[in-house]
Amino acid sequence: MPRVSQDHLDARRRQILDGARVCFARYGYEAATVRRLEDTIGLSRGAIFHHFKDKESLFLALAEDDAARMADVVARQGLVQVMRDLLAGDSAHPPDWLGTRLEVSRRLRTDPEFRARWAERSRKITVATRDRLLRQREAGKLRDDVDVDVLTSFLELVLEGLVSHLAMGFPADDVEPVLDLVEETARRHRAGE
Amino acid sequence: MPRVSQDHLDARRRQILDGARVCFARYGYEAATVRRLEDTIGLSRGAIFHHFKDKESLFLALAEDDAARMADVVARQGLVQVMRDLLAGDSAHPPDWLGTRLEVSRRLRTDPEFRARWAERSRKITVATRDRLLRQREAGKLRDDVDVDVLTSFLELVLEGLVSHLAMGFPADDVEPVLDLVEETARRHRAGE
Repeated sequence: MPRVSQDHLDARRRQILDGARVCFARYGYEAATVRRLEDTIGLSRGAIFHHFKDKESLFLALAEDDAARMADVVARQGLVQVMRDLLAGDSAHPPDWLGTRLEVSRRLRTDPEFRARWAERSRKITVATRDRLLRQREAGKLRDDVDVDVLTSFLELVLEGLVSHLAMGFPADDVEPVLDLVEETARRHRAGE
Repeated sequence: MPRVSQDHLDARRRQILDGARVCFARYGYEAATVRRLEDTIGLSRGAIFHHFKDKESLFLALAEDDAARMADVVARQGLVQVMRDLLAGDSAHPPDWLGTRLEVSRRLRTDPEFRARWAERSRKITVATRDRLLRQREAGKLRDDVDVDVLTSFLELVLEGLVSHLAMGFPADDVEPVLDLVEETARRHRAGE
């Protein structure tokens, strides 16, 4: 057997994830069959599932990628910026892809193991959001009459609403001032305001 | 043919809607087949589709019922109360039923006619929310530095987030203070706050 370099493995993994993302977005989670995954990725099922245990693991790996990318934006610019990026049509999260997370809602609700694996991924965003808010509070930029955990849950709930809104294809042209309001809600209110 | 009274028609319609709600919640929109609808409702497909054109119309009639019920709560107590009812485990909207609206997201996104029919139903809630906010503003209870349309969209986005959160089966025990914050965000800030 030839030695396979780490670079090669990484590239192969990337090819699988990119193709799977397109496939899930195009057909939805359930209808993204193994056959369709093969076609979209351009590899055999043997090659695909050599890298990922099963379809579920592939989906969760994509969700994990998203979470890592979002946590990165959160750390630098906050969770509202993640929402602004989604609103601006962030190419990594088109509505078709966002929709897949709604489509797995039944699975999340009824399969505790799947929910636990998904929650692990969400936790990254929660931690990044909470850390950022704590730093903002220390810098005197955050209101101090509401618990940081409550503000974190508030921002996450609005994000969930936005994902749902975009995934359903509803008009988003009136959402920007809403995000301004959400951002302002977390900020320290200056005297006289 | 015997004359069928309006009462009888209404009762039959109610039986169909109640059964269909159970069926959609139990199996999800796609897997709620005509056979399963017959079993859960206890009527033949002939009888069911005498009252409703097709499965889609049945589903939208249920969504319409929900919207009317929610608009009623909104008019009296506001949209945050609708959210509090959902959070308290409002029996008319269990997570299984809420999940069906996430499951149809692809359909909503890709089928303009379906989306238009759904939007018609949502409009009732928007109108009721906006009317209530305008009354609150006249009564001096609403902040006046943010447009009523923005506040309406804000509340609706949080509702969408809550529906998604509950439908995915995530813990809701930390959501109540978030709803307090949402409610407070729309209120007039008294001097000194």
